[in-house]
Amino acid sequence: MAPKMEQAFADMAALLRAMTEAVTSASDERKLALIKGHPDLAGKAARAGTLSADSRAEQASAGLDRLSEAEFSRFHLLNNDYRKKFGMPFIVCVRRHSKDSILRQLERRWRNDAATERATAVAEILRIVALRLDQRIDALVRLAVNGRLSTHVLDLHGGKPAAGIAVELYEISGEHALRIAHAITNADGRPDHALIADRPVPIAQYELRFAVGDYYARLGTPVADPPFLTVVPIRFSVAEPEGHYHVPLLITPWSYSTYRGS
Amino acid sequence: MAPKMEQAFADMAALLRAMTEAVTSASDERKLALIKGHPDLAGKAARAGTLSADSRAEQASAGLDRLSEAEFSRFHLLNNDYRKKFGMPFIVCVRRHSKDSILRQLERRWRNDAATERATAVAEILRIVALRLDQRIDALVRLAVNGRLSTHVLDLHGGKPAAGIAVELYEISGEHALRIAHAITNADGRPDHALIADRPVPIAQYELRFAVGDYYARLGTPVADPPFLTVVPIRFSVAEPEGHYHVPLLITPWSYSTYRGS
Amino acid sequence: MAPKMEQAFADMAALLRAMTEAVTSASDERKLALIKGHPDLAGKAARAGTLSADSRAEQASAGLDRLSEAEFSRFHLLNNDYRKKFGMPFIVCVRRHSKDSILRQLERRWRNDAATERATAVAEILRIVALRLDQRIDALVRLAVNGRLSTHVLDLHGGKPAAGIAVELYEISGEHALRIAHAITNADGRPDHALIADRPVPIAQYELRFAVGDYYARLGTPVADPPFLTVVPIRFSVAEPEGHYHVPLLITPWSYSTYRGS
Amino acid sequence: MAPKMEQAFADMAALLRAMTEAVTSASDERKLALIKGHPDLAGKAARAGTLSADSRAEQASAGLDRLSEAEFSRFHLLNNDYRKKFGMPFIVCVRRHSKDSILRQLERRWRNDAATERATAVAEILRIVALRLDQRIDALVRLAVNGRLSTHVLDLHGGKPAAGIAVELYEISGEHALRIAHAITNADGRPDHALIADRPVPIAQYELRFAVGDYYARLGTPVADPPFLTVVPIRFSVAEPEGHYHVPLLITPWSYSTYRGS
Repeated sequence: MAPKMEQAFADMAALLRAMTEAVTSASDERKLALIKGHPDLAGKAARAGTLSADSRAEQASAGLDRLSEAEFSRFHLLNNDYRKKFGMPFIVCVRRHSKDSILRQLERRWRNDAATERATAVAEILRIVALRLDQRIDALVRLAVNGRLSTHVLDLHGGKPAAGIAVELYEISGEHALRIAHAITNADGRPDHALIADRPVPIAQYELRFAVGDYYARLGTPVADPPFLTVVPIRFSVAEPEGHYHVPLLITPWSYSTYRGS
Repeated sequence: MAPKMEQAFADMAALLRAMTEAVTSASDERKLALIKGHPDLAGKAARAGTLSADSRAEQASAGLDRLSEAEFSRFHLLNNDYRKKFGMPFIVCVRRHSKDSILRQLERRWRNDAATERATAVAEILRIVALRLDQRIDALVRLAVNGRLSTHVLDLHGGKPAAGIAVELYEISGEHALRIAHAITNADGRPDHALIADRPVPIAQYELRFAVGDYYARLGTPVADPPFLTVVPIRFSVAEPEGHYHVPLLITPWSYSTYRGS
Repeated sequence: MAPKMEQAFADMAALLRAMTEAVTSASDERKLALIKGHPDLAGKAARAGTLSADSRAEQASAGLDRLSEAEFSRFHLLNNDYRKKFGMPFIVCVRRHSKDSILRQLERRWRNDAATERATAVAEILRIVALRLDQRIDALVRLAVNGRLSTHVLDLHGGKPAAGIAVELYEISGEHALRIAHAITNADGRPDHALIADRPVPIAQYELRFAVGDYYARLGTPVADPPFLTVVPIRFSVAEPEGHYHVPLLITPWSYSTYRGS
Repeated sequence: MAPKMEQAFADMAALLRAMTEAVTSASDERKLALIKGHPDLAGKAARAGTLSADSRAEQASAGLDRLSEAEFSRFHLLNNDYRKKFGMPFIVCVRRHSKDSILRQLERRWRNDAATERATAVAEILRIVALRLDQRIDALVRLAVNGRLSTHVLDLHGGKPAAGIAVELYEISGEHALRIAHAITNADGRPDHALIADRPVPIAQYELRFAVGDYYARLGTPVADPPFLTVVPIRFSVAEPEGHYHVPLLITPWSYSTYRGS
């Protein structure tokens, strides 16, 4: 059974504050020791299966357990350069990222100086801690560590929510598209559940695909043959994993609009 | 040198009317003979290189010279079924079509009765004739055999045409995307030339891709990191090869709209 | 103190069903007696102040206490024609209407035959009853007698909800505009409360006015002088008083969109 | 008959350049004399009918011949203050303005210093000259002194231009709306002629009104009763009289969008 918050701290935020205070006020030696206790990302430990269950799940969530040989080599190279420059492993809160954004982070952070990078590593460890706390502990008031990705389809031809539209969510990496969620819109034009929820929305490029052609065919709406619109792809990137990304679609058989909503 | 219209007919439309009259008033035997004079689509003649120059160029324009083995087999099978049922080759004005839409035509028309199909074949032959006339003969007044595909990008963030946006046009077939045109928008937010013009717009699925992220990066507009929008894909199908398809894009860094315009 | 439902009926819907059953199964004479017990709309009783408190409040809600002389004459004339033809007063559930839509109803229903009109009058009486019940009685589960009119402003220039926008709601009758609600959008781009709620949304023409110019001026967004948009008026009509009318606005300094949302 | 350009100058631009050179290189005394030769705006000369035909037409175009008593007093007051401060009449190229924008100019320019204001007055005189030249002289290449206000209606419900829509253009001043143009859209969804053309578009607030309800009623499109949209008002301001203001409308029976187009 999960431990209860009230045993020692007023709430989870208080616990996190205490841990943050303890870590940030520690000496540089102790910080470095904490940092060095972490495994390499996509490293030998991952391949050898000697990661902790948490680390394994986190690395898998970003796709680090599905790297191609070329990607693995690239990670290996950048990891080594990083370790050579800073004398510590590269640490990032992987649940906030995708494979692509972790590679971008590695390239960018490698250019930092040692002090900046030590502070960044500690901040990332605290993000990892906050997420593990959020998942482990029953609490009414949650930490603000999660984001959300949702959608909504309005049929401007009929003047009503578009019910029964198949929606797919893909994570895009270069030419590769990995389907990570799918749903059917309900009577209010929304999937019953957010497409991503109760976790950070990984920094990544996404594509929503809406089966608009099937929808109007079912309604018997007069359209062209073949219809002007069949599957509508909406491609966008997430930059704030803790944000709410609401990406609605306004459709007719001849037009559509989308926007970052709220 | 191209022959001049005025030698025999008032204009090209009169010439075409005369040819149409001659063909449609002919006996069934003569019609059938005309139809049988045509080669199979994507057939052995195409592979053997014994097509006329016109036929070869037309079949190439629909991608019939680039079929995979599986596609070639599918065409072969459907062509044979068609020839077996009707005793004549399947004729379609390929410059109005893509590989995918020709396959759909084969499947649909195979279900027709013989009289309907003979009339359809004659109508398609007259379309082929009209297009060959249009390309061969100098005339001020052109036949209405051509369509147009154009675009326009408006920047609703800046309240002005979006200049310097890279636009690519792809023909989509299943998972395959073939780039068939590309351009940069000018000061009025338009490519200098229509993306498809002076020919029928083949019945097919298309995707326009607009490099919106690069545009706002060049302007220094504040956006997220990574930007919400980088490349905007607009996927649509053409049903009327002689129509004007104007597919504009209205953008901000956080939203876009598109529609079949005019 | 309000009587409690559970004393006699399972819930309010059960009470209403019982009343409906009693009224619709009554003889034509008793129905007619019930109908004749109602006052004329905008009639002498209204002017003389002898209406019941409920009737007075209801007639006021539709603006029937603020008629011009010309409007009063028009009502008087149509009421008389109606009474002459059917031998009973014209009954309509005024809380679902505006002055203009009641006049349209009078003109339309006058063309009905007697049986249709008797049934319509009884149905309207039951609507009046349902609304009075809904306002009088404490109940967890409410009758579906109320609608809602709400809005939401998204700033597509900034990619976020538009906070602090002044919104006014007017009821439009010919050239006359009567302001009936106003609000400021909150951090989520919405007024804190729906502009109309907890009552039917009267069948009428409305205009929302959004102070978009002030909003971008406060943000210091570069615009033209004078700005392209200052106050954006959105004019629309309500046809279903029990519906949810969500009328959002998507803005930039150079564009806007609106739609019937949900 | 109009004099021909080529008699003395290469073209109209050359003539204007010569006049500009002559005026701007003149001594302050001569400039002041030129300025003082102009009548007061909306002044006694206007009321007495002693203005030149050009001045009279120009003042009428901005509505200065239709001032209310209150507006006349306001002009009189501001004109007097201006003349008292600068010792010269207030000069503005009225064809680029509306009554409201001239009042704003008077208030703003009164705060200038004498040198700035003398230069501004000369610049305005040259604008007046350029416009009079443009109207008087036959020339193939026109001066860039005119703007344009146009519209276009697309029906996104039917996927085609909206033909036969009645469009009205009003100039808005406070609560007052003056209709200044009207048209019916043609088969391409456009009025046959721009709503304002061949002159500067006065700096003013405008409202376009589109009879969308009548359009869908004629087509028999199923809508609500009353329809959600009947007349769509689009309110906007013009800041650049020489600009092209294209203000299109994209409609369905349940939604619309507009933007400053090009």
